[in-house]
Amino acid sequence: MRPSGRAADEMRAITVQTGFTKHAEGSVLIGFGDTKVLVTASVEERVPPFMRGKGEGWVTAEYSMLPRATHTRGSREAAKGKQSGRTQEIQRLIGRSLRAVTDLKKLGERQITLDCDVIQADGGTRTASISGAWIALRLAVQGLLDSGAIKEDPLTRKVAAISCGIHQGTPVLDLDYIEDSSADADANFVLIEGGHIAEVQATAEGATYDEEGLLRLLRLARIGCAEIFAAQDKAVAR
Amino acid sequence: MRPSGRAADEMRAITVQTGFTKHAEGSVLIGFGDTKVLVTASVEERVPPFMRGKGEGWVTAEYSMLPRATHTRGSREAAKGKQSGRTQEIQRLIGRSLRAVTDLKKLGERQITLDCDVIQADGGTRTASISGAWIALRLAVQGLLDSGAIKEDPLTRKVAAISCGIHQGTPVLDLDYIEDSSADADANFVLIEGGHIAEVQATAEGATYDEEGLLRLLRLARIGCAEIFAAQDKAVAR
Amino acid sequence: MRPSGRAADEMRAITVQTGFTKHAEGSVLIGFGDTKVLVTASVEERVPPFMRGKGEGWVTAEYSMLPRATHTRGSREAAKGKQSGRTQEIQRLIGRSLRAVTDLKKLGERQITLDCDVIQADGGTRTASISGAWIALRLAVQGLLDSGAIKEDPLTRKVAAISCGIHQGTPVLDLDYIEDSSADADANFVLIEGGHIAEVQATAEGATYDEEGLLRLLRLARIGCAEIFAAQDKAVAR
Amino acid sequence: MRPSGRAADEMRAITVQTGFTKHAEGSVLIGFGDTKVLVTASVEERVPPFMRGKGEGWVTAEYSMLPRATHTRGSREAAKGKQSGRTQEIQRLIGRSLRAVTDLKKLGERQITLDCDVIQADGGTRTASISGAWIALRLAVQGLLDSGAIKEDPLTRKVAAISCGIHQGTPVLDLDYIEDSSADADANFVLIEGGHIAEVQATAEGATYDEEGLLRLLRLARIGCAEIFAAQDKAVAR
Amino acid sequence: MRPSGRAADEMRAITVQTGFTKHAEGSVLIGFGDTKVLVTASVEERVPPFMRGKGEGWVTAEYSMLPRATHTRGSREAAKGKQSGRTQEIQRLIGRSLRAVTDLKKLGERQITLDCDVIQADGGTRTASISGAWIALRLAVQGLLDSGAIKEDPLTRKVAAISCGIHQGTPVLDLDYIEDSSADADANFVLIEGGHIAEVQATAEGATYDEEGLLRLLRLARIGCAEIFAAQDKAVAR
Amino acid sequence: MRPSGRAADEMRAITVQTGFTKHAEGSVLIGFGDTKVLVTASVEERVPPFMRGKGEGWVTAEYSMLPRATHTRGSREAAKGKQSGRTQEIQRLIGRSLRAVTDLKKLGERQITLDCDVIQADGGTRTASISGAWIALRLAVQGLLDSGAIKEDPLTRKVAAISCGIHQGTPVLDLDYIEDSSADADANFVLIEGGHIAEVQATAEGATYDEEGLLRLLRLARIGCAEIFAAQDKAVAR
Repeated sequence: MRPSGRAADEMRAITVQTGFTKHAEGSVLIGFGDTKVLVTASVEERVPPFMRGKGEGWVTAEYSMLPRATHTRGSREAAKGKQSGRTQEIQRLIGRSLRAVTDLKKLGERQITLDCDVIQADGGTRTASISGAWIALRLAVQGLLDSGAIKEDPLTRKVAAISCGIHQGTPVLDLDYIEDSSADADANFVLIEGGHIAEVQATAEGATYDEEGLLRLLRLARIGCAEIFAAQDKAVAR
Repeated sequence: MRPSGRAADEMRAITVQTGFTKHAEGSVLIGFGDTKVLVTASVEERVPPFMRGKGEGWVTAEYSMLPRATHTRGSREAAKGKQSGRTQEIQRLIGRSLRAVTDLKKLGERQITLDCDVIQADGGTRTASISGAWIALRLAVQGLLDSGAIKEDPLTRKVAAISCGIHQGTPVLDLDYIEDSSADADANFVLIEGGHIAEVQATAEGATYDEEGLLRLLRLARIGCAEIFAAQDKAVAR
Repeated sequence: MRPSGRAADEMRAITVQTGFTKHAEGSVLIGFGDTKVLVTASVEERVPPFMRGKGEGWVTAEYSMLPRATHTRGSREAAKGKQSGRTQEIQRLIGRSLRAVTDLKKLGERQITLDCDVIQADGGTRTASISGAWIALRLAVQGLLDSGAIKEDPLTRKVAAISCGIHQGTPVLDLDYIEDSSADADANFVLIEGGHIAEVQATAEGATYDEEGLLRLLRLARIGCAEIFAAQDKAVAR
Repeated sequence: MRPSGRAADEMRAITVQTGFTKHAEGSVLIGFGDTKVLVTASVEERVPPFMRGKGEGWVTAEYSMLPRATHTRGSREAAKGKQSGRTQEIQRLIGRSLRAVTDLKKLGERQITLDCDVIQADGGTRTASISGAWIALRLAVQGLLDSGAIKEDPLTRKVAAISCGIHQGTPVLDLDYIEDSSADADANFVLIEGGHIAEVQATAEGATYDEEGLLRLLRLARIGCAEIFAAQDKAVAR
Repeated sequence: MRPSGRAADEMRAITVQTGFTKHAEGSVLIGFGDTKVLVTASVEERVPPFMRGKGEGWVTAEYSMLPRATHTRGSREAAKGKQSGRTQEIQRLIGRSLRAVTDLKKLGERQITLDCDVIQADGGTRTASISGAWIALRLAVQGLLDSGAIKEDPLTRKVAAISCGIHQGTPVLDLDYIEDSSADADANFVLIEGGHIAEVQATAEGATYDEEGLLRLLRLARIGCAEIFAAQDKAVAR
Repeated sequence: MRPSGRAADEMRAITVQTGFTKHAEGSVLIGFGDTKVLVTASVEERVPPFMRGKGEGWVTAEYSMLPRATHTRGSREAAKGKQSGRTQEIQRLIGRSLRAVTDLKKLGERQITLDCDVIQADGGTRTASISGAWIALRLAVQGLLDSGAIKEDPLTRKVAAISCGIHQGTPVLDLDYIEDSSADADANFVLIEGGHIAEVQATAEGATYDEEGLLRLLRLARIGCAEIFAAQDKAVAR
């Protein structure tokens, strides 16, 4: 029995509110249960130094937790003067995941930055960030297409992410904070619609798992991502 | 005529949504028109080193803009590795304003931190922050009173803040971004209910004003704060 | 009775020693009683990035306390690796105050930096800095006019600053350290000759004041600034 | 055909030189072909603040590349003043991997730090680091057992890591730099002897893979780790 | 012929103004010609962590140039967020030089910090700093003896420093900025009265010198330090 | 009697292994007894900003200790976020020493960086670094000559460095860690073949020395450097 009463393969409610802020080219407040992340997509007509002159664009991400997104207040990274290793690891993951479905040539020499700011945390902030970032990116790209700034859609597949884990011996989908704190193993899957894997990050500090265990988690992830893909479709439908 | 069509002494709509996040001891999403600030109050049972052993508490604030709260994306302070002078100036102002209405002795040896994170900016982010921070602080203090952690209410007066300025020669109340960018002079007033002044920060880069001009702005500020005090009362009514 | 024996509207002795250092285009050691600030004006034939290509100049300021300017040694900001919020707030104020009396177009595409280094502190370091910075700026601008680098004087009015406060219930002028530490309220006024206000920064951590109190402090500030304007005139007379 | 002429399931030569430096409680220079990493294990009789008073120990890791370990010189992180996100991600991975095989209670209240400094890089620096770190840790723990500082061996299983990837459509084992730069997908596996998985980090920026692809990479990883386990056994045999 | 018209073994005028600031336990404005350094000695009743519990004191130094001490404005280290290598090298040298004449046991468990702030630079700022720091330290120690805080004088010898160099083939004493910029070799000597050497830092980027050259510079340094010792005696005479 | 049993004028064994890493244009693992430093020379076809457009090259150095090069683990400078004063002082010394024997005009507009990473420390790390850096630089320059990138050899003399000190009253050559920790005085000499002095850094925290003492140390240094010059010759012989 899961602490939340959910079935092993049951996601939390996915909530999506597009246009949550007005300045960004794309913005969404995405919720996986009590985890709430505000994602904005910002289009800038320049690329970072290492991409200049290639005729291609760039997609990148930044991630942050508001200090009191969590049960007890964490210190503000801007005040400490540096981003934690965890923050950097997550924002690199988000960027890679979005680039996995973006044709940078078709984007043209411009950058889209996905800012993922966690308003409230209850487990799964990185997977909600990736899933929401696709929506914000899609909205921003749609704007570029509508205005004629780009001719061909650089974003033809969806990407979503979900965490799975082994909790009290049972593989479960979409861990909340209570499960995450006591899970024997924890895996984040970034999947692309059509069945492909973009990223797997599976960790077992306490227990370990074998090949069969990994596959069971992957199959749960497919169930979860199918539900996220549907929510993404609905959010960007015109 | 103001760009927004408002009268000279007309505030933007004040919106208040308490309990916007669930972990904080007090939380509010406050809006002054399109300016939206999420304020959380976090209670910690310790005080900063310079207050230890005095039998008193402390109230402090941190302030930040989400990178895409603004028209164009600003760089993230956590990524740059330092807070700007503007950020530090604002968070010091918020802290002083709240301490002006808090009896630190009655608070006991604990700290309350007000985190003010600007979700969307359209002028007046510091005044919305102060006005919202009072609500979050009030909610957190109420919790301490309800639980018996403190016996006497350390917070017996309300504090609110509003900006005024001289726009095209006319003193106006509650500047939005368009007015703020082109104002001849700009003043932020922090007022305490009952007519007292806690802080004045008046600046004139372009024009300057005289004693009479300062008083006209102060009178507008009284009008605006009266409206904010009413919204605060409504927000914390039980 | 004030601790120093001064009358309520009595300034400390203002001392001005121009040419205190030889390399700077303008330099002055200004004293408000025991508060001593060395201000240098440095002219550079370039402007910061945000001003490039506008055909205008820029005036900016930096502020620092020597570690043992104060009663007990403070840590050196260069050793700590960052400037405090207080330092940044003050140097922003100094820069704005000087720009309030400078016609940046007439200055041409060059920058003048006012470095205000507090040699000894006894209250009022920011107001002495502003008042002295005008002298250093005036001397540097005079050099540019004399050499023909600029044709029209970009600096046609004087600016000065003074602190006032309510000490034991009485509004007093030019607070020294003892008064400042125990004042109920503290206000810094930056005034321009001719009666205009450039900046007001009024704070009341303990008590608060009302409109009448603010005006009484402003009137004291006028008295103090008149004396500073006279000292400035004398210092730059040729 | 692989650029190196190796078979798809063929590792590079593993070289192990224990006792490479004399001060550390354990030290090894490990090579996976031209990738050379110096790993030292340092025992300290204290634990980090978050572990104090629990009666348990801690195992952590730091990772760095010498500036000219690579084809072109990279900037020195100490000179830049911060560690990159990649560095932090890798050192967190190394630490977790070693903790997965360490019984922290049996270690007692002390910390062992694994410093992994890449002397020469040719792909697979993080996997060589983990594999070498186990040897250094084993040597340090043996010293603690020999001296009687600890009674029971906290380290009863081996851990090793290897990268696999899809290169020109073929799954291959132990990617060198040339393969890594052009791989369609890249996965790092951290395996524990006995067939268990401690960590999987699989990334596909260009292509993606499906379940079958992931399993093929995992099977290659088992082949590689078997070879590393043998080299580890030989290195620590007494 | 030297640019200044001085003889090869002729010092610039040494000026000493003790009590330049009022808060420090010892303070002096020392001048070697146009080089002016303000040195303050601050006594604190605590020692740094590495000296705790030894029953000994510590003497340390910090050094800084005001941004416009030099011909062209240098950037402020506090604003840049770090001290340059040159700054750190000099402050370490000053600290070592003063400790060479201090009996730390007799000082008792307290720290004296010598802050050397260069007001105006014209070559020889580190040697003026050391020579002035001895005066400030002597004054602070005298205060400790007078108050009875310490019983025995920990400072029984004087220390002074001077630069020498080879300028256009001729060994010269006390280089000013013009000579320093074009010198073939440059050496700083820290000497203790009675003929002993505390430190030699001799550098030859352009030319080099031989044993005889080094000795000629050392002999010039003796002449210069004799003059500084006399000035120190006069400054601290009661 | 020296702790190591060496004669007063006896060097530790000098070991030199060129080509220790494969990517660098020059690389060497140099040992002075148990002190082992890896030095790489990296050629880059650009110069730092202050050298641009002069048609000259630049030679610079960076220095670091691996955290466990020493008896007890030191913290990693990259993790602390800054280089210590000692590190900066040493890398400045290495750079100056190499530039003393390099004709920057003949090098052409390119930079050579000498990275000196201490693998194991037992005293004399800076002198081993300088002595090894010359070898790495020589190898890199030889590559530039061989490829025709430069026409004339910019490096016509050798430079070497050695420490000497007064240990228990006796002047001794090439101090190891035990001697260094207890030496009365310590001097590092950087000598150029042919008898010239490039740098002297002589320090006496405890005792002091006189002219005769300095000369005796210099003469020991000549003995040591002669031996290093021979080792350098042998290392770069083709």
